Amino acid sequence: MYFHRQELQHKSKPSKPDAIFARRLQEVLGGQYGEITVALQYGFQAWNSHLPGKYRDLLFGIGAEEMGHVEMLAVMIAQLLEKAPIPASEDAAKSDPVLGAVMGGMDVQHAIVAGAGARAVDSNGNPWQGSYITSSGNLLADFTANANAEMQGRVQVARLYHMTDDHGVRDLLSFLLARDTMHQNQWIRAAEELRAEGFEELPVPSNFPISKEERSVSYQYINFSDGQAASEGTWASGPTPDGHGQFSYVAEPPKGVPMPPATQPDGRFYGTTAKSNTAEKIGGAIKDAVEKK
Amino acid sequence: MYFHRQELQHKSKPSKPDAIFARRLQEVLGGQYGEITVALQYGFQAWNSHLPGKYRDLLFGIGAEEMGHVEMLAVMIAQLLEKAPIPASEDAAKSDPVLGAVMGGMDVQHAIVAGAGARAVDSNGNPWQGSYITSSGNLLADFTANANAEMQGRVQVARLYHMTDDHGVRDLLSFLLARDTMHQNQWIRAAEELRAEGFEELPVPSNFPISKEERSVSYQYINFSDGQAASEGTWASGPTPDGHGQFSYVAEPPKGVPMPPATQPDGRFYGTTAKSNTAEKIGGAIKDAVEKK
Amino acid sequence: MYFHRQELQHKSKPSKPDAIFARRLQEVLGGQYGEITVALQYGFQAWNSHLPGKYRDLLFGIGAEEMGHVEMLAVMIAQLLEKAPIPASEDAAKSDPVLGAVMGGMDVQHAIVAGAGARAVDSNGNPWQGSYITSSGNLLADFTANANAEMQGRVQVARLYHMTDDHGVRDLLSFLLARDTMHQNQWIRAAEELRAEGFEELPVPSNFPISKEERSVSYQYINFSDGQAASEGTWASGPTPDGHGQFSYVAEPPKGVPMPPATQPDGRFYGTTAKSNTAEKIGGAIKDAVEKK
Amino acid sequence: MYFHRQELQHKSKPSKPDAIFARRLQEVLGGQYGEITVALQYGFQAWNSHLPGKYRDLLFGIGAEEMGHVEMLAVMIAQLLEKAPIPASEDAAKSDPVLGAVMGGMDVQHAIVAGAGARAVDSNGNPWQGSYITSSGNLLADFTANANAEMQGRVQVARLYHMTDDHGVRDLLSFLLARDTMHQNQWIRAAEELRAEGFEELPVPSNFPISKEERSVSYQYINFSDGQAASEGTWASGPTPDGHGQFSYVAEPPKGVPMPPATQPDGRFYGTTAKSNTAEKIGGAIKDAVEKK
Amino acid sequence: MYFHRQELQHKSKPSKPDAIFARRLQEVLGGQYGEITVALQYGFQAWNSHLPGKYRDLLFGIGAEEMGHVEMLAVMIAQLLEKAPIPASEDAAKSDPVLGAVMGGMDVQHAIVAGAGARAVDSNGNPWQGSYITSSGNLLADFTANANAEMQGRVQVARLYHMTDDHGVRDLLSFLLARDTMHQNQWIRAAEELRAEGFEELPVPSNFPISKEERSVSYQYINFSDGQAASEGTWASGPTPDGHGQFSYVAEPPKGVPMPPATQPDGRFYGTTAKSNTAEKIGGAIKDAVEKK
Amino acid sequence: MYFHRQELQHKSKPSKPDAIFARRLQEVLGGQYGEITVALQYGFQAWNSHLPGKYRDLLFGIGAEEMGHVEMLAVMIAQLLEKAPIPASEDAAKSDPVLGAVMGGMDVQHAIVAGAGARAVDSNGNPWQGSYITSSGNLLADFTANANAEMQGRVQVARLYHMTDDHGVRDLLSFLLARDTMHQNQWIRAAEELRAEGFEELPVPSNFPISKEERSVSYQYINFSDGQAASEGTWASGPTPDGHGQFSYVAEPPKGVPMPPATQPDGRFYGTTAKSNTAEKIGGAIKDAVEKK
Repeated sequence: MYFHRQELQHKSKPSKPDAIFARRLQEVLGGQYGEITVALQYGFQAWNSHLPGKYRDLLFGIGAEEMGHVEMLAVMIAQLLEKAPIPASEDAAKSDPVLGAVMGGMDVQHAIVAGAGARAVDSNGNPWQGSYITSSGNLLADFTANANAEMQGRVQVARLYHMTDDHGVRDLLSFLLARDTMHQNQWIRAAEELRAEGFEELPVPSNFPISKEERSVSYQYINFSDGQAASEGTWASGPTPDGHGQFSYVAEPPKGVPMPPATQPDGRFYGTTAKSNTAEKIGGAIKDAVEKK
Repeated sequence: MYFHRQELQHKSKPSKPDAIFARRLQEVLGGQYGEITVALQYGFQAWNSHLPGKYRDLLFGIGAEEMGHVEMLAVMIAQLLEKAPIPASEDAAKSDPVLGAVMGGMDVQHAIVAGAGARAVDSNGNPWQGSYITSSGNLLADFTANANAEMQGRVQVARLYHMTDDHGVRDLLSFLLARDTMHQNQWIRAAEELRAEGFEELPVPSNFPISKEERSVSYQYINFSDGQAASEGTWASGPTPDGHGQFSYVAEPPKGVPMPPATQPDGRFYGTTAKSNTAEKIGGAIKDAVEKK
Repeated sequence: MYFHRQELQHKSKPSKPDAIFARRLQEVLGGQYGEITVALQYGFQAWNSHLPGKYRDLLFGIGAEEMGHVEMLAVMIAQLLEKAPIPASEDAAKSDPVLGAVMGGMDVQHAIVAGAGARAVDSNGNPWQGSYITSSGNLLADFTANANAEMQGRVQVARLYHMTDDHGVRDLLSFLLARDTMHQNQWIRAAEELRAEGFEELPVPSNFPISKEERSVSYQYINFSDGQAASEGTWASGPTPDGHGQFSYVAEPPKGVPMPPATQPDGRFYGTTAKSNTAEKIGGAIKDAVEKK
Repeated sequence: MYFHRQELQHKSKPSKPDAIFARRLQEVLGGQYGEITVALQYGFQAWNSHLPGKYRDLLFGIGAEEMGHVEMLAVMIAQLLEKAPIPASEDAAKSDPVLGAVMGGMDVQHAIVAGAGARAVDSNGNPWQGSYITSSGNLLADFTANANAEMQGRVQVARLYHMTDDHGVRDLLSFLLARDTMHQNQWIRAAEELRAEGFEELPVPSNFPISKEERSVSYQYINFSDGQAASEGTWASGPTPDGHGQFSYVAEPPKGVPMPPATQPDGRFYGTTAKSNTAEKIGGAIKDAVEKK
Repeated sequence: MYFHRQELQHKSKPSKPDAIFARRLQEVLGGQYGEITVALQYGFQAWNSHLPGKYRDLLFGIGAEEMGHVEMLAVMIAQLLEKAPIPASEDAAKSDPVLGAVMGGMDVQHAIVAGAGARAVDSNGNPWQGSYITSSGNLLADFTANANAEMQGRVQVARLYHMTDDHGVRDLLSFLLARDTMHQNQWIRAAEELRAEGFEELPVPSNFPISKEERSVSYQYINFSDGQAASEGTWASGPTPDGHGQFSYVAEPPKGVPMPPATQPDGRFYGTTAKSNTAEKIGGAIKDAVEKK
Repeated sequence: MYFHRQELQHKSKPSKPDAIFARRLQEVLGGQYGEITVALQYGFQAWNSHLPGKYRDLLFGIGAEEMGHVEMLAVMIAQLLEKAPIPASEDAAKSDPVLGAVMGGMDVQHAIVAGAGARAVDSNGNPWQGSYITSSGNLLADFTANANAEMQGRVQVARLYHMTDDHGVRDLLSFLLARDTMHQNQWIRAAEELRAEGFEELPVPSNFPISKEERSVSYQYINFSDGQAASEGTWASGPTPDGHGQFSYVAEPPKGVPMPPATQPDGRFYGTTAKSNTAEKIGGAIKDAVEKK
């Protein structure tokens, strides 16, 4: 169950309206790595969890916080739009470059669709979608996904920080940056703990039977580009992070196997095949196939 | 530049047709974490790279290999479909449960749209999309995204392995599993190397000025759910992975700040506001606003 | 701020596994009119609200409940999938029609992607998307959207009720049906109250200046199909619900105005125009345009 | 069958070109609540109708009109773009702020993709999609959806009216506003008539057996936020619109039920479970599961 | 303007219900090459047309017919679903393989969402979308798109023909096949006529100034795969269809140009660059950049 | 297998940065007819090919070249963005119209998400998607799709040419224009060769049995609009391109057949039917249906 309190976790009030920045801020609300993504991602991981206890509790505890971040950003965007100008005609824009600049940079659906309100979209107006979420049931994979989400998210917030000089907005961003710092650290630590406690190991999934894997290529760097620099990395020699092998470097991919023969599906799929090259098409063709049917 | 050789990296030939499995295999071809995703993700990261040398070379080298994996899977799917039955009527399905089972489990667009061919979609028929890709320019974030992609992908291939007993298909999957083992190890190692060489550090991005972040909450676990188990994790006390702080546990979120007042946009957005409660609507209203315009 | 409690509003436990029904239940979790939609729709309407007080409080109060419904459904789906069979080969399906039936009816991504977990998608596997949400800032329009969402949702739950005989599942559905009954009643009443209190009126938006509307056709039923039955409705004669006019019936649309002339854009758009019919294309054409540039 | 006449229902000719407004006008052509939506929504509701006579006739009659509105808007957009400037380089924009303003505000795909033509997209360039349509077979629900669509649409047209001062464009918008006035009135009346004639009743669907619903919560406002203002509404006490109950107000949600135990799916899904915490992973694990298979 | 007549162009009545085929038929209603696509594609091409007269008249004339095809298919699907079984539980499917087969093969949203009605989606339930449409303003390109659409569509209808033995359905399909025959012939002829009359020529667009094109590679087959068979085609030697050149065959791509140096964007984008390798990250970094800001 | 060489097929280096043009160039990288589309389209057609030899070799040979075009465009976009300004506040835009113009015209996700890098999206920021691809197995249809793709693509590149005066960018565009010239010529010739060699014929698919098609309407132009100009075209009289008939012109569509009766689905779908008009809804209704269940 979720409960709502009519307070914000942190102050979220701009010093002045800025319809252009309101659009940009949509990225961290409704973008691929925005707050809706993490709020629902942690929720689904918790609901799907096969392991009660501290890991699931962690997911529940953070997931609800992120719903509050969704709210803080939505409220901020609505305030940035509060005094947004009504977009005007091209003539008006031409005679008033200031107005033109604002009109060009804002999200017109903020005005036309939402009447100066926030939306569940990214900074280009693409609707948020469920495919942004990752929840596989394997917690080592999923915590890595979470660490990535918090990294991408923090990079975006840091970029946005430099795109405004509004003290109120920067104040909120500095808070979000700090929480992303925490969440990065936390997911990395949680992934380590999963391994330390023996729940998961590399490679994910670690309990897939080793005998079923083509082990001869499990630790080979096979080089499909013509550069040689990658051979210098620690991914090209030395022990592997999973502790089960040694990296090796294969400068040129070994010869492959021939393409299998082209497929020959049923004639009633009307694909182009060797057999389709018959003398008479209209009227006489594929009688057999059709009579079968 | 890309060059194509009419060979496959590994044998990709099923022992027998299986239209149902062909549909499932689409997941690792055209799904969120399928081969199209990694092929293009590594490509875009390389093209956008700001750092010549071994890291970019690594991206080029693996990206091209993944294009070959796209090909192996597409060719496998086409062969699994080669003898696929033409889907029949409901009556036929009713009188032949065997046929009915196949029809229910296959992707009907394999037959109707592609004529027994592979498609750029996932196992539910959702088209692959560009938003599956991550390329931020920050390599520590992006290599973490890559590690996650290879983990999710390997989990999916492992699951698929148990969904077939076809020797030819399993042979290909065992090869893909091994390459995913390699690529997981490799991205984890590459992320470590970026840190060891001082290019990036935690938290990402590490060179955002610390004074601009609200440090008081940078290492707090703030608990928004009512469980206490998360306090037991190493993410709730002790040193943080970034080396700059100590985790602390806040059992209950501190009091927030009041909601800012409701916004009052221009009347010409026709939102519901206190002012919209006027005696006379049709005909007399918002004259001022309109006359201004 | 949102807080989570590790309880469910109502019991959500199936009597037995049912992977097929798990797929169907996704509709009311992640479909167009599923619980994610209403949870976020009421949230955005509240965050964008221009009117503090009982209407916004209503939106907050219900929105948080709906997040709990998302959770109940996700948890139910995970349990329905708990003992889901691993999808097997086509041969297995053929030799075991029971297995074949289950495999045909289940969502294969439940197995391959989520490892027997719930997902943010509908019953056909389409990801939930932000464009399912409506939040215009005009509360009479939005409450009507809400009433519709609760109606569509309750119709779907009622249909699902007949698609299972599992007591645990039906128990949850009977609870959701009751809450949808409440929410339908509530949004209809809230829309009435907005009108009674003079905040909004028909037609929405009611304070658009009447003189700017082409009033001659504001209450005409203009019949663009060849049936005459629609003339019998109370929408074809008598007073209009907005209280400002009388319906009339126009059996045949009046003559229209001629199509405006075809457009003639700049030659550098390379559209097909009368001018593009020149004697000499390659080499000589549109010199002027190009020389300008 | 549909027939086309090469006339427009109303004059649709701008006084002057305006590429910026052309983009905005796309919202009511190809947006969530644009004319394509209502044209196809009324069509699908008619084709799916289970009730011949005046209601279906109404859907046919209006649906065809809306196709003509699609056409009027497309023709208008093409004319607004007719003299659109070819977007120029950044340098040109910098030296000519007027040009820059136009370039920033226009839809670049209007130029690049459509060569100064209209497109089946909204004002942010998102393609129209079939999920905007509602057609459930239950006419009370669907007519409520229709009323909402006409309300949202009219709000958007009203907003657009203030974003231009072109007489030709405003003339078309004033016509569309009037038709939306009609259609709002009409769907509201039609919904009332369905109830008056006994076809449908609240709550939708009204013939779901009452004994199957958890009636104890059918009329309760359960407050999941911390405000008390919602208790003042007529949705919190008094008779319900469906005529079958009395609203009541529950200030605090009753205690819930415990979360069900975490699920324990088959080991071959490779989720993280208590069992996955085994000493030996690679090579030895889940032998049983694999040997079964 | 569009007018509707409550008749169908051709009989559209199945002999018996078939929920499985109803799903498949959605492909040619709401798929990439379904009737909604061509109806709106021809509409947009006409509305955007720069050339009055026979070509635009052709687009109007066929576009309206295709709207009637949308209707015929929707009505057929609703009838195929009329006696569709209510999907039942997994247990029921297991004990009744016949029922299981039907449940596996049908579109569950037909039941849950549309109540046995047609939907604006394809055979996998993907919503129709505006990006299926092509309308560039260049009629030679667009008529080629139209010819392709009619070819793909006819292939799909032909495949569907073999997937049913219902006389009523086949009767409708035979009609659609014939109309697709006509429309293929027609668009090919119309494209020829555009060329014959000098409106357009190959290559499209033909009036782009030849001097601006890198003519040295305008007619070269450059072989990026290792096969040599393509050299045998008439696309590898001899005169080109545009009449302006001779094909030539380049067996191996010439040496390329070096990759340009990696980009070095502003430090405030926090990408990984050579400069990001500084000793001290947290606290001291990118002071300059930040102080500038 | 694909191999990568760290060279570009042609020089791809702008003379100066241009963030606005970078956005526009995304259209031919990640748009409906961009290079990702053709690269993967030719790939899937080859992998699905039923015919070994020159046609498949052609698909392989060109497909790999197009992957290199993806790369050239991505690299160009990254360079155009290299010195892109960090988007600034609305105030900054207002005081500096030059900056405002750039900010309005650029893709903000280039800055926020990709850190001055290219993305897999079109010029409006819509992600590339798998449904842009066509691969039906019928090569005459698919080569027509390919010809169309190259035509649309070349039209777009030609338009872009006029939107920049940067010599480096124009140099790349002139190269792409030439390759599109080649590819248009090539696909048209390949389609002719398929016909000349008897593999395929018009109408596609040509071996569908003629007796199964409703031949009476196979060559009729049926006019559903009120113009008469289309009767003047060679598609309205004379021999048909498939060589099997004569076009005829039907000025007015013949009378249709009556709409089939409205469907009457099972009561448990809760649609509105004649039967739903019962006296008593809540409590007493559809007992039979429910008791059955």
